[in-house]
Amino acid sequence: NMSAEKCLVIYESPITCEYLDEVYPEKKLLPSSPFAKAQQKMMLEHFSKVIPYFYKIPMDKKKGEDVSGLEAELKEKFAKLNEDLVNKKTKFFGGDSITMIDYMMWPWFERVEAYQVKQFLDGTPELKKWTELMLQDSAVKALMFSPDAHKAFFKTFLDGNPDFDYGL
Amino acid sequence: NMSAEKCLVIYESPITCEYLDEVYPEKKLLPSSPFAKAQQKMMLEHFSKVIPYFYKIPMDKKKGEDVSGLEAELKEKFAKLNEDLVNKKTKFFGGDSITMIDYMMWPWFERVEAYQVKQFLDGTPELKKWTELMLQDSAVKALMFSPDAHKAFFKTFLDGNPDFDYGL
Repeated sequence: NMSAEKCLVIYESPITCEYLDEVYPEKKLLPSSPFAKAQQKMMLEHFSKVIPYFYKIPMDKKKGEDVSGLEAELKEKFAKLNEDLVNKKTKFFGGDSITMIDYMMWPWFERVEAYQVKQFLDGTPELKKWTELMLQDSAVKALMFSPDAHKAFFKTFLDGNPDFDYGL
Repeated sequence: NMSAEKCLVIYESPITCEYLDEVYPEKKLLPSSPFAKAQQKMMLEHFSKVIPYFYKIPMDKKKGEDVSGLEAELKEKFAKLNEDLVNKKTKFFGGDSITMIDYMMWPWFERVEAYQVKQFLDGTPELKKWTELMLQDSAVKALMFSPDAHKAFFKTFLDGNPDFDYGL
């Protein structure tokens, strides 16, 4: 169907990952076992509950509100992720090599400094080690933005006028 | 890994669907084309924005609040789904046979009466026709609850004490 091909637009990063895995099977983002695949998606569901803190803490802070409760909750979430790595005894969240779940979580950790939540990684040595390993990955290195770039974009966001083209 | 097998628990219905498709390939829930598969998941993302209305309208109504704005929005969402079927020119949302997206959307349409939003299907003839076709599906027939059962469960929910075992 030509018209379907012409407007082939895929959005939402986990959907895109699975599409890429099917269309370009050389280098897989997901593990091959159906259960391991399901586990990655379940981990992502859990992680999706962490993301709102990245926005809520700086936004409430800007409004002068008390964010200590939110900060304690985020600290607990990071501690839980650290514990997951300890229990798994693996370097990455899907095993000893990097997989989809790591790439889906990474963008938030790239922002810890810009979003003023970096200090909550204290006391999570395994999670910190994971961020260091992620920083050595070639895809991460090729695509990452500096903390300053994140800060500058996030300022436009907090000011209510997000510059989505920032840094492009 | 024995311990992994022993605690093989999968949750979240789209994750479960994909797992089942991989493990029991005889009868597929998803289309085989990678793009068609991605489309189903994107449709589901859109549909996930409809679900909160099913809760918010009856809950706000119970509190005596004005729900006319929410009702108008839900009506618009149903009209959009109707339009999707008109544009696709297919009986179901993924083509002329039933696929994952239909099963993922269906439980909400099974509840339209119990959740007092059935009247918003007026003026959406294609969507109504879809609900009638869904009611003829053997899996839907085998697993559905009556409007009265949904009503009785939803009452326990609205009263703040949901009986999750209702009807089991």
